[in-house]
Amino acid sequence: MEQVDLILSGGVVLTMNERLDLYRRGAVAIRGQDIVAVGTVEAIDAAYTAPERVDCSGRVIMPGLVNTHTHAAMTLLRGMADDLRLDVWLMGYMMPTEAQFVTPEFCRLGTLLACAEMIRSGVTSFADMYYFESDVAAATAEAGMRAVCGQTVLKFPSPDAASYEESLAATRLFIEQWKGHNLIVPAVAPHAPYTCTDEILQACGELAREYDVPLLIHISETRLEVEESRRDYEMPVVPRVKKLGVLDAKTLAAHCVHVDAGEIKTLFNHKTGVAHCPTSNLKLASGMAPVVEMLDRGIKVGIGTDGPASNNDLDMFEEVRLAAILAKGVTLDPTALPAKQAVLMATRVGAEAMYLGHLTGSLEPGKRADVIVVDCDVLHNTPSFTRDDDAVYSQIVYASKSTDVQHVIVDGKWLLRNRNLLTVDEAAVMERAAVIAKDIDAFLIAREGNILNKLIAIGGVEQTESFEIQVKAQLQTDATPEEIVANLLNEPSVQVVRFSRYRQYDTYFIFGDESQGRVRYREDDALNSKGDVDGVRTRLTFTSPTKEREFDDAVVLSRSQFIAPATHPLRFYREYFRPTEERAIQKERYRWHILYKGVLCYVNADRMMNPPIDGMFVEIKSQTWSRRDAEYKAALISEILAILGITPDKLIRKEYIEFALA
Amino acid sequence: MEQVDLILSGGVVLTMNERLDLYRRGAVAIRGQDIVAVGTVEAIDAAYTAPERVDCSGRVIMPGLVNTHTHAAMTLLRGMADDLRLDVWLMGYMMPTEAQFVTPEFCRLGTLLACAEMIRSGVTSFADMYYFESDVAAATAEAGMRAVCGQTVLKFPSPDAASYEESLAATRLFIEQWKGHNLIVPAVAPHAPYTCTDEILQACGELAREYDVPLLIHISETRLEVEESRRDYEMPVVPRVKKLGVLDAKTLAAHCVHVDAGEIKTLFNHKTGVAHCPTSNLKLASGMAPVVEMLDRGIKVGIGTDGPASNNDLDMFEEVRLAAILAKGVTLDPTALPAKQAVLMATRVGAEAMYLGHLTGSLEPGKRADVIVVDCDVLHNTPSFTRDDDAVYSQIVYASKSTDVQHVIVDGKWLLRNRNLLTVDEAAVMERAAVIAKDIDAFLIAREGNILNKLIAIGGVEQTESFEIQVKAQLQTDATPEEIVANLLNEPSVQVVRFSRYRQYDTYFIFGDESQGRVRYREDDALNSKGDVDGVRTRLTFTSPTKEREFDDAVVLSRSQFIAPATHPLRFYREYFRPTEERAIQKERYRWHILYKGVLCYVNADRMMNPPIDGMFVEIKSQTWSRRDAEYKAALISEILAILGITPDKLIRKEYIEFALA
Repeated sequence: MEQVDLILSGGVVLTMNERLDLYRRGAVAIRGQDIVAVGTVEAIDAAYTAPERVDCSGRVIMPGLVNTHTHAAMTLLRGMADDLRLDVWLMGYMMPTEAQFVTPEFCRLGTLLACAEMIRSGVTSFADMYYFESDVAAATAEAGMRAVCGQTVLKFPSPDAASYEESLAATRLFIEQWKGHNLIVPAVAPHAPYTCTDEILQACGELAREYDVPLLIHISETRLEVEESRRDYEMPVVPRVKKLGVLDAKTLAAHCVHVDAGEIKTLFNHKTGVAHCPTSNLKLASGMAPVVEMLDRGIKVGIGTDGPASNNDLDMFEEVRLAAILAKGVTLDPTALPAKQAVLMATRVGAEAMYLGHLTGSLEPGKRADVIVVDCDVLHNTPSFTRDDDAVYSQIVYASKSTDVQHVIVDGKWLLRNRNLLTVDEAAVMERAAVIAKDIDAFLIAREGNILNKLIAIGGVEQTESFEIQVKAQLQTDATPEEIVANLLNEPSVQVVRFSRYRQYDTYFIFGDESQGRVRYREDDALNSKGDVDGVRTRLTFTSPTKEREFDDAVVLSRSQFIAPATHPLRFYREYFRPTEERAIQKERYRWHILYKGVLCYVNADRMMNPPIDGMFVEIKSQTWSRRDAEYKAALISEILAILGITPDKLIRKEYIEFALA
Repeated sequence: MEQVDLILSGGVVLTMNERLDLYRRGAVAIRGQDIVAVGTVEAIDAAYTAPERVDCSGRVIMPGLVNTHTHAAMTLLRGMADDLRLDVWLMGYMMPTEAQFVTPEFCRLGTLLACAEMIRSGVTSFADMYYFESDVAAATAEAGMRAVCGQTVLKFPSPDAASYEESLAATRLFIEQWKGHNLIVPAVAPHAPYTCTDEILQACGELAREYDVPLLIHISETRLEVEESRRDYEMPVVPRVKKLGVLDAKTLAAHCVHVDAGEIKTLFNHKTGVAHCPTSNLKLASGMAPVVEMLDRGIKVGIGTDGPASNNDLDMFEEVRLAAILAKGVTLDPTALPAKQAVLMATRVGAEAMYLGHLTGSLEPGKRADVIVVDCDVLHNTPSFTRDDDAVYSQIVYASKSTDVQHVIVDGKWLLRNRNLLTVDEAAVMERAAVIAKDIDAFLIAREGNILNKLIAIGGVEQTESFEIQVKAQLQTDATPEEIVANLLNEPSVQVVRFSRYRQYDTYFIFGDESQGRVRYREDDALNSKGDVDGVRTRLTFTSPTKEREFDDAVVLSRSQFIAPATHPLRFYREYFRPTEERAIQKERYRWHILYKGVLCYVNADRMMNPPIDGMFVEIKSQTWSRRDAEYKAALISEILAILGITPDKLIRKEYIEFALA
């Protein structure tokens, strides 16, 4: 008789091993952090003794669930903003709030809350992508869970880095700090192809290969992402990231909603794991992933809850069930993705997709003891049929609830016992979370609440111009717009992409609290070469008055804007927004889209008609994503100013609204 | 100060009334079975006192959930058979098991189990369609729940009636027995247009109008149903039932997955309620209902779990959540079906859809006290944001679980208190359910398990011929087939629809236990007028040897058959099924599809080639659905026999297999 530490005995054992062995009355022997043996009660009892035996009659003993995609710390943003368009949700709520609140402490607290919820619902390991990932890792290890922790890198300034260069450097340190940890596998997580430049994606792939760590990324989540990739790179998303070497790493791609047959083949050939997140994909209206096609191809497709801000929970039982039934609905085939396969995706295949297959995902000697015990002898799972062993998988997938999980063991250690959570102080975590939620509420009410919400409420908010770098000059001149920019347009390094001419009628709504931002209603009358009106467009723009940063020469990095088509008359918006003050200006704008040294810039030559102001205004603008890029473009703008012969004394920091009449 | 019996106080009150009033710190005053007042804690405390006050701080007080479509007693079949094609699931498992097991006791027990589960998950009223509905009603009333109970009528013999005439008579009695009950509203439930004849549908509509009770029906659940309706009635499903007067009743249509814009308009014009069942529609691969279009049209669309054999639970929280997110995924619009609207569908609108809007579905003075209290101060719903009142609906829909329901009151009576179930003895019900499940397991293993399952397992089982009425004669004659039927074909009352000629090679697989049924492998060589082979078709048929009933003249009512195309060679099936015995016959068949007095009949004139038997066999067959119809067709068959000059002494009860060589 061999001595082990613990025997779980008498339940139905789902091993989820290659042969899918199932023991109707089975047992699992555990020593230290490892599974020593799995078999029938008789076989285990004949070979092993243990000081601790747990009776699991009427229960199912199975591998812990593997949540292959989440942003754990976002528990603290759960339910903050729902039922919104993806860009409004992300740019209007998530990112501004994250910029303000996400700190190392936020990440630790949010991750602890997430771990508590996941342990209670039978999850033993997960793949995470977020900021301050070292703190996510620390909280996860404290809760006793296993995780692949991916430090986010993206082209925007983020809560934990002012630029992607900083992110990459921090990711390297993070990997060195955590590599070899018993529970945590550090990883690099370029956020998504559309939020990363080629350079970032390449660098992330190289870093992942250098340290042989997983690379986590969002891939083809929305149709828009694929359309923009085709427009900007002349190929869909997967070929682009393949070309940049991203798939040469141990890559785990989340979502893959809009991938075609060729892309599926590419993912398979590169052994890329996929995290299928059906709730998030439905809730954010991203679509329905071709999960059956991917599975049929042989791709390791796991299941993920996605972050609790887009789900809004971390319940893998709900997720597995949805994965199983949605696949049937999409393929119109009720035999698609049967219960057994769904359990497999949520255990062994999920573990393999996130490169933890050697450690977890099945109950097999030699793997770590990541085990859960689920009570199936409950009202909502009554009765039980035994004619067919598949009925057990069916019970787990179609009728079990996360609250039926009785015990959770990770790495041989008890985390949940008889539904008592042993590693996280839930009450304390909930109390601290409530304080943060209150602060976020106050922040949103004060800072963006009224005006932006009101704009969003009327619908159609479509995009953000994100970060713009810009400069403005006021010239006392009688020259025509064409004469003013003549020098520039004649430069060999300049290429004119588009020219347009507008008469612009702007009405600004100003509110008592300036920090709330303001709304501009603009009517753009497009003029043809004869100066006749060719078309009219009206739109609303919400801007926050704050400047992010000022460079030399009054070159300014501006905050993001929200733009919506104005489908109602000005009167409607006046009554709807009830501004405390209103100002109007009218100007004529000549606008050139140019490429200067290959960089897209906008040059506006504006004549103020009302109030009438002599001379001309010249604006030069360009979009930007990272600090280093902003510096580079600020330098380019200075060069353009020099070519135009505009000296620094002509530069002004005043916005047009400041010239306006009350 | 007015005296009431009970005040629920201090929670967030979602009234779900027309104005959608929400009280952040609200209270509900209850007297007897009625709601007396709803308002802020201050307003209620100022006007009412009660001997019993329940503190609901940190909780949500809301109307009980309304499950607009289920088959409650099918809890006892939960998980019995999953991941199968709809017809196989229904005809292969559900119906045979129901025919054997569904008794009044089964329905009482199954309904008690369902009520226990529904009360625990916050459901206070539901719409049911099943057999022995009087027993369903009795168990529901015993559990203290409110329900619309629909007695099923259909063209097949059913567990509670040998014919639809019996069903209709029983339904009338049922309505008279239960009309005016405090909790139960009796209803008539023609199962579905495809399982009912025109006559049944018309009669059900008339019965519902006669007693002014609801009519429950499944409508356009599958694409096949719509295709067959177009083929057989030259119109989709809704126009057909409209024409038959079904929509002139207080009708609640379940599913409506495949309805077009015109049908949606028709449903709206007739004020037909709709029960949307997203889980069932996905799991059975029926499709995704156009729920947003129906809601936009103004149809009262409620939410239903469907029966626990196709879900596999009765959890309305999961169902509401799925309805909300699936609508976004289908329309690719994340603002579709927001949380508030989902809660509305699951409460007031659902109650209106099942014609209980005057009693339940919202917290308003004058309505019955059907109230639930949900704990939102739980880990998986942490934190709570208060900036926007809509966040409460979001918490209920996207993060709450059925297990968060703390209290349930129906008709002013406590059914669940601090999660203790007060009206159903759960342990006893679960124990009795386990006994039935064991019997069903044994039945399926013994009776249909091996052979039918094996047939199903290889796929392609496509249809049942259901009940056939047939007769067979053996004639000692040298006449040709044409000569034998000449008299019949010359009759003015006979119209030939189709003629075909086959050479048939039949191989029967016979198994040790005859009650398991047998499998026939048939090769049909279609012959043209010159006797050359025109085409070959092979198929498998599973038949049970039992005869349902025998009429005069050896006219027999046969059991259902399962037919699948045989895509493998005979050798494969021989090795796959491993029959204990095998018999083969070869015959040449002349087959006429005729209409006799407007009834479709098949006349086969068969010559046995191997083993060679002199003379001819003549078979006359027709499909049938009800006892009365079977009697009528038996009489027609006797008339045909007389026309053919076949005397009773020529009739045989032997099947072809009995002539076969071993």
